[in-house]
Amino acid sequence: MELASRDDRGGLDLNPELVQDLLVRFIKDETQSAGFDRGVIGLSGGVDSALVAALMSKALGRDGILAVVMPYRESSKESVEDAAFVAKELGIRTEIVDISPMADAWFSQATGSDKVRRGNVLARLRMIVLYDISAREQALVVGTSNKTELLLGYGTLHGDMASAINPLGDLYKTQVWELAKAMKLPERVVSKKPTADLWVGQTDEGELGFSDEQVDRLLYLMVDERRKEEELLALGFDRGFIRRVQDMMRKNQFKRRPPVIAKISYRTVNVDFRYVRDWGT
Amino acid sequence: MELASRDDRGGLDLNPELVQDLLVRFIKDETQSAGFDRGVIGLSGGVDSALVAALMSKALGRDGILAVVMPYRESSKESVEDAAFVAKELGIRTEIVDISPMADAWFSQATGSDKVRRGNVLARLRMIVLYDISAREQALVVGTSNKTELLLGYGTLHGDMASAINPLGDLYKTQVWELAKAMKLPERVVSKKPTADLWVGQTDEGELGFSDEQVDRLLYLMVDERRKEEELLALGFDRGFIRRVQDMMRKNQFKRRPPVIAKISYRTVNVDFRYVRDWGT
Repeated sequence: MELASRDDRGGLDLNPELVQDLLVRFIKDETQSAGFDRGVIGLSGGVDSALVAALMSKALGRDGILAVVMPYRESSKESVEDAAFVAKELGIRTEIVDISPMADAWFSQATGSDKVRRGNVLARLRMIVLYDISAREQALVVGTSNKTELLLGYGTLHGDMASAINPLGDLYKTQVWELAKAMKLPERVVSKKPTADLWVGQTDEGELGFSDEQVDRLLYLMVDERRKEEELLALGFDRGFIRRVQDMMRKNQFKRRPPVIAKISYRTVNVDFRYVRDWGT
Repeated sequence: MELASRDDRGGLDLNPELVQDLLVRFIKDETQSAGFDRGVIGLSGGVDSALVAALMSKALGRDGILAVVMPYRESSKESVEDAAFVAKELGIRTEIVDISPMADAWFSQATGSDKVRRGNVLARLRMIVLYDISAREQALVVGTSNKTELLLGYGTLHGDMASAINPLGDLYKTQVWELAKAMKLPERVVSKKPTADLWVGQTDEGELGFSDEQVDRLLYLMVDERRKEEELLALGFDRGFIRRVQDMMRKNQFKRRPPVIAKISYRTVNVDFRYVRDWGT
């Protein structure tokens, strides 16, 4: 029984029913085993967080989820409306937190900010609000980063990449769309251009210079099928594109890993002390 | 050639010269291999960050380090003075950022806050400031969490536990003191009671209910020497103390690891896709 077939879209096709079941069970089990029965999620108006919210409401029930919408004053009004629409459709509790006062308190002191730095600050402020609300609610922070973003490092470390559990981390972006469509998420969310909403008019494709379809196919072949560069070239991928994606993966490895610790002792955290079994009972 | 001997303090004794050399080289090598030649550090006035600053100035030179002091309006004046004193002694560049406006912007909106939640918010705001300054400075964020804190989970995830590289992560707190003394750090920093400075009058020992000496000896035996409970009892440790420490280690495992990802595909980030070798070249 395979969750994904190797045919058609180069192995990116999903069995949506099976994947949905697996993810609903994942959310339920991981939440319980962490000692919680509820989760919080930051709802952006995009497809990833809408999908996670839908999966969470199946796993934890409508009362088991709180959606937090965290606009900055420059955020697109449409995104906030889309987030509110999704929450209403799912019938889940919503809280809106304007992060502008916190953000502007820092932006007025920070020197030489550019839009990337400002975007990272906003993503991290959202993390703070979400984690603080999760403590108030005795709930788990559920993440929304997909595999494409994790592999490319397209996300903010300690910002949107921060969570306790991440149901979408092994689904490529195009698979997220596919599952969202299969689960009949609102058309206005499923059909819109992906954006991290880091600044006005920002779209992922505009910023990255390639579409999710293109990069997902390449990443799948590189990561899941371990194809070498010669094979990728033979399959028609451009050498510059391959190199650029490899470079992004390599440069952003630090975002996927805990801090590097200098090894001194017999057993070092995250080197040879990583698993529950490592401390026995 | 051993970095730590198994004698005297139950294996916690260090060879300070050797460890200092190793850590200086670690900082230099890791900074360079990440493509940087400078680092930033949050200086709290405590011994951990003072020690890391001293190691960084040996590794990267005085000009290669920027120390950021980030008081909240309720922070102890003494801590800020101690931080400034350390920076002056080391002759390093310092920047002071008052995080009160950011913090109060959130505290005035947040409901039901307690001192733990507020402490976590402050630690995370410091992370935001430090990471944003590191981007401005094209420098690496160097962490200060020690092994005792990492094992007990005594720190804020995405707050003070966030860094690119962590030189002290494999040194127990009492070893940090030992190295700080050997490196002749200012007496006022080495001799004061450890505090996370999360609220007025907070001390680590007061909050945790045991001293660093006691817990380091236990952790060393449990983690580094893999001693079983019967052996620890025979060595005179109290059963309640052992259980409590085991419990803290277990409950805080999530702080030492990246988010848990639902496995769907052939190769999953942080499950079977973790190392640079995993994507070949």
